[in-house]
Amino acid sequence: MHFTAEQRLDDGVLEREFTLGEIPGILWTPGSAPAPAPLILLGHPGGLRRMYPRLVVRAQNCVAAGFAAATIELPGGGERPRRADLDEARADLHRALAAGQPVTDEIVERLVLPLVDQAVPELRATLDALLARPELRGPVAYAGGVIAIGVRLAVVEPRLAAAVLFAGSYVPRVMFAEARQVTIPLHVLLQWDDEGNDRQLALDLFDAFGSAEKTLHANMGGHTGIPHFEGDAVSRFFARHLR
Amino acid sequence: MHFTAEQRLDDGVLEREFTLGEIPGILWTPGSAPAPAPLILLGHPGGLRRMYPRLVVRAQNCVAAGFAAATIELPGGGERPRRADLDEARADLHRALAAGQPVTDEIVERLVLPLVDQAVPELRATLDALLARPELRGPVAYAGGVIAIGVRLAVVEPRLAAAVLFAGSYVPRVMFAEARQVTIPLHVLLQWDDEGNDRQLALDLFDAFGSAEKTLHANMGGHTGIPHFEGDAVSRFFARHLR
Repeated sequence: MHFTAEQRLDDGVLEREFTLGEIPGILWTPGSAPAPAPLILLGHPGGLRRMYPRLVVRAQNCVAAGFAAATIELPGGGERPRRADLDEARADLHRALAAGQPVTDEIVERLVLPLVDQAVPELRATLDALLARPELRGPVAYAGGVIAIGVRLAVVEPRLAAAVLFAGSYVPRVMFAEARQVTIPLHVLLQWDDEGNDRQLALDLFDAFGSAEKTLHANMGGHTGIPHFEGDAVSRFFARHLR
Repeated sequence: MHFTAEQRLDDGVLEREFTLGEIPGILWTPGSAPAPAPLILLGHPGGLRRMYPRLVVRAQNCVAAGFAAATIELPGGGERPRRADLDEARADLHRALAAGQPVTDEIVERLVLPLVDQAVPELRATLDALLARPELRGPVAYAGGVIAIGVRLAVVEPRLAAAVLFAGSYVPRVMFAEARQVTIPLHVLLQWDDEGNDRQLALDLFDAFGSAEKTLHANMGGHTGIPHFEGDAVSRFFARHLR
């Protein structure tokens, strides 16, 4: 892992860009910390630069609550090499949506499964590199959309102690068997009136999770309109499970 | 309104029993308060004495968060005169449940509508009497089960500024039109794995509410197993809307 740039944000948070092999990422840590901070991995739909304005707000909230935050570019996203299979699946998805046709499980599988298969080992390698640093510690958490990645990570990564999942992304039904294997505490955010969101799938997935502690928070406000007070609820969820 | 008994609880909360005409009730207020406290009406399924252990905990949480709390006996409940129509509807309900038969809308209407029709005017008269006291003030909130009562109260009572509804009680489908008229902020608690609960009805009702701010919190833990951290979330909801 190599740091390639760093800056201090207004609130004193230290933001460092890094590369892990060919994968770009960003790490946010407290300006000064007496002890190693538990790490939260921020999930996003790909395109680090495009997503940056929203990611940095989430990262600053994490740091303000006493944690560190990190994220990496998704396979095929941003400036990473395109993946023809994912591009094709995405084109088929947009064609179906534009034509008002149902998004078949076959399209969702082609869109999501290869992404999960590549992204999860990359996230685990990122954890290996980051947790070797003295300013960071486990256990860690995952927070974000592309919840299929969060589901797989929760099943295979023993350092993951909790996850906040933003419902609303596509999850192939074939992954429900994995969802049943998830046992870590989950906090699921669902925007109830998000038209691009399959609400029933989100509720079915919540039902499927095997976790004894799982909480669903549904709100109004559309895809990006998660109410401000939910940020506080997420911080308290992390504090319960990472401290 | 007449106070009939009073005691100090361990945490200094002043608990006073009262009667309003023939209706018994309980008022909980801070031991000492520099200013009038916003009032929260606690809903329950009837039987004040039976429900007291759970009600007093909820009331103490309200007072600890800076509010006052009050509750009254439901029509036909506890030591109030029985109502033959409600008893008959309840017997039909239990017969259907024991026989494993579906609980028809007809039974639910006979069980809930007469209760709502009588309980809501009684709660409004209670507000008239309580808000005339110097230690209490509006706007007020409703918190509890028998959510059909909360729905009707939210539609007809302008002093009600917010409501916390414990999903899981029967709500006749005919009341969904009233649910669409509700515009105050709502915080709905749903025990996801409560076997006695019609989860789909709860989700449909949440969808029907007309409120621009409505939040659903679903948790595991069975009917009475609402997690402790949800008490904090409820206090913060009240603080946002009653202060």
